[in-house]
Amino acid sequence: MKRFFSKRVLVTGGLGFIGSNLAIKLVELGASVTVVDCLVEHHGGNLFNVEPVKGDLDINFTDMRDAAAFAPLVKNRDYIFHLAGQVSHGDSMRDPQLDLGVNCISTMNLVEACRELNPGAKLIYTSTRQVYGVPKNLPVDEQHPVMPIDVNGINKLAAEYYHYLYHRTYDLPSTILRLTNTYGPRQQIRNDRQGFAGIFIRKALKQEGIQIFGDGKQRRDFNHVDDVVDALLRAASTPACFGEIYNLGNQPHSLLDFVDCLRALTDVAFEAIPFPHSKKIIDIGDYYGSYDKFRQATGWQPAIDLQQGLENTLDYYRQFPQHYWT
Amino acid sequence: MKRFFSKRVLVTGGLGFIGSNLAIKLVELGASVTVVDCLVEHHGGNLFNVEPVKGDLDINFTDMRDAAAFAPLVKNRDYIFHLAGQVSHGDSMRDPQLDLGVNCISTMNLVEACRELNPGAKLIYTSTRQVYGVPKNLPVDEQHPVMPIDVNGINKLAAEYYHYLYHRTYDLPSTILRLTNTYGPRQQIRNDRQGFAGIFIRKALKQEGIQIFGDGKQRRDFNHVDDVVDALLRAASTPACFGEIYNLGNQPHSLLDFVDCLRALTDVAFEAIPFPHSKKIIDIGDYYGSYDKFRQATGWQPAIDLQQGLENTLDYYRQFPQHYWT
Repeated sequence: MKRFFSKRVLVTGGLGFIGSNLAIKLVELGASVTVVDCLVEHHGGNLFNVEPVKGDLDINFTDMRDAAAFAPLVKNRDYIFHLAGQVSHGDSMRDPQLDLGVNCISTMNLVEACRELNPGAKLIYTSTRQVYGVPKNLPVDEQHPVMPIDVNGINKLAAEYYHYLYHRTYDLPSTILRLTNTYGPRQQIRNDRQGFAGIFIRKALKQEGIQIFGDGKQRRDFNHVDDVVDALLRAASTPACFGEIYNLGNQPHSLLDFVDCLRALTDVAFEAIPFPHSKKIIDIGDYYGSYDKFRQATGWQPAIDLQQGLENTLDYYRQFPQHYWT
Repeated sequence: MKRFFSKRVLVTGGLGFIGSNLAIKLVELGASVTVVDCLVEHHGGNLFNVEPVKGDLDINFTDMRDAAAFAPLVKNRDYIFHLAGQVSHGDSMRDPQLDLGVNCISTMNLVEACRELNPGAKLIYTSTRQVYGVPKNLPVDEQHPVMPIDVNGINKLAAEYYHYLYHRTYDLPSTILRLTNTYGPRQQIRNDRQGFAGIFIRKALKQEGIQIFGDGKQRRDFNHVDDVVDALLRAASTPACFGEIYNLGNQPHSLLDFVDCLRALTDVAFEAIPFPHSKKIIDIGDYYGSYDKFRQATGWQPAIDLQQGLENTLDYYRQFPQHYWT
C-alpha cells in the first residue's frame, strides 16, 4: 500500500463510520487526506472519529448537495473515495426527499465536478447490497438482477449508474463496491438508525437486552470495517477494477449467531419478538453475497472473523463511551 | 371508455406532447381534467396544445419540484397520469441536475403526496425504453435487464422504482408504461431536443433536407400519439395493470423507412452523415420492444400505421405552423 504515500485523497463522508476508518488508514499510509462531511444530523458523522489523526488531515464541512460550493474540492485529487450519503433504510422511507438529496444529488454533483475539473481522479464508490432487494438465489453475485425495495436502495442504485455512466461516457475511472452489513469501531450506535449490528452492540454494552425480529434465523454476511477499508484500498489500487461493480461479503451467519458471539463477550440477555410492520415491509430476508469476482480481481478476502471483530469493536466502544453510547 | 365520465383526473405535464393529447381525449370522454405544467423551457409544454378544449379544463402552473406547493393538487383525484419530466437524452447529459430535478424529485414529490393525501388515486407513469440501454436481444420484453446509458434513462428508472416501491409498500395503485419513439401532433418540433422523429418531421415540413446519422438502417418502433393515449387509458382502466410494468411498441422500421414515408408525403431531400460523437455515445443501436404482455392484459395494439400516422401528423403541423415550426 505504498501506492498512497504522498497521494492527494478526498474522502467524502470522511467523518462517518467507514469514511473515518478509511481516512485514518490513509493518513497512516502517508497520504495527504481531506475529508468532506457536512455532518447531516443522524447520518453518523462524528468529529471524534478522526481524533487519532487530527492535525494530520484537512476537514471540510461543505454540503455536497451544493454543487457550486463542492466542485472545487475535487481539484488536484489523485483518489476520491465517495462514502457520503445516508445509509438507513428506515430513515429513507421516513424522509425520502432527504435521501434523494444526499445520495443522488450529491453523487451527481461529484461526477459532474470530476468531469469538468478533474477527469483523471480515481473514483471509488461505496454502494450497498440493498440494490438487489429480496435475493432470488444465494449467494448473490453481481449478475443477480437489481430490484431495490426501499428508497435508499433506489437512490444508491441511481448513484451507481451515474458513476458507471460517467466512466463509460467520459472515461472517469470509477469503481463500485456493494457493501453488505459492516460493523466495527466509529459507527453511530447511539440511536437505532444505522442497522441492527450497531443496535445490538450498543445494547450489549449497556446490558439492555437485545430484541431480535422474527426467529433470528435470518442469515447475513458481516464485514468488519477494517476489512472494508482494505477492500477500498485494493479497489483503488487495481486498474482492472475501474468500470466494474463488485460485491463484498463473507460467510453467512444467522442473527442468532451474531447475538451468541455478543453474549459470549458480554452476557447480554435477548428475546425474539414479532417483526414490526414498518420493518417487515423493507426486510429482504436471508442475504449473503459472493465476493468471488472481487477476490479474483484484487486478492481480497475478509481477514477478521466475527468473534474477533466483535471483541475489537466492544473494546473500542468501552474505551470511549461518552463519544458513542452514554 | 365511459369509465372516465365525470372522473377527476390530474395530468402532470399536461401541456406537453403526450399529456395534452391525453388531456383532450379525457375532456372528450367527460372527465373533469386538471393539467399541471410549469412549462420548463424546452421541455415541450405549449399552451396552444390544449386549444381545442380550453375552457373545459383547469390549467395549473405549479412546479412539481416544489413539494409543498404541489402536494395539494393530488387531493380528490381518481386518476393521476404522470407525464411531466424531461425526455431529451442529449439535454440530460448537458444539464444532468435539471434532469434529476424534473424526473426524480418531481416523481418523489408525487408519490409522497399521494401516500399522504390520496393513497387511493390510480397512478399511471410514462417511462421510457431508454431504461434498457443497449438491447441484448430483440424484441426487448420486460424481462430484459435494465442498464440505462444516459442520465435521462437513469433518472426515469429511479422514478419507476419510486412508483413500484410505493405500490408495493403503501398499496398505491400504480402502473408503469415504457414508451418507445412516439410521434404525432402537439410535439415540440421547433428545435432538435425531442428526438429524431420530430426533427425529421420539421425538416420535411420546411423542406430543409434530413440528415440521418450512420447508415439509416437502425431499427426503431414508432407509436403514434393516439395509440399511446389509448394505451394510457386502457392501463388506467385495467385493475390487473397496477403493480406491473409494460412496454409499448410496434413493428420495427428502419430510419430509412421512416424517411421514405416522409418523402412519399413531402418529397424532402435526405443524406446520411457520420454519427457525431456526442450522439454516438448515448445511441442504443437497434431497438424494438415486445408489447405482448400489455396486449394480453388490455387488448391494446397499435392501430395507426406509419404512413397513415405521418400523414395525420403533417396535416396537423401544416394547419398551425406558427405554433410549432415557423
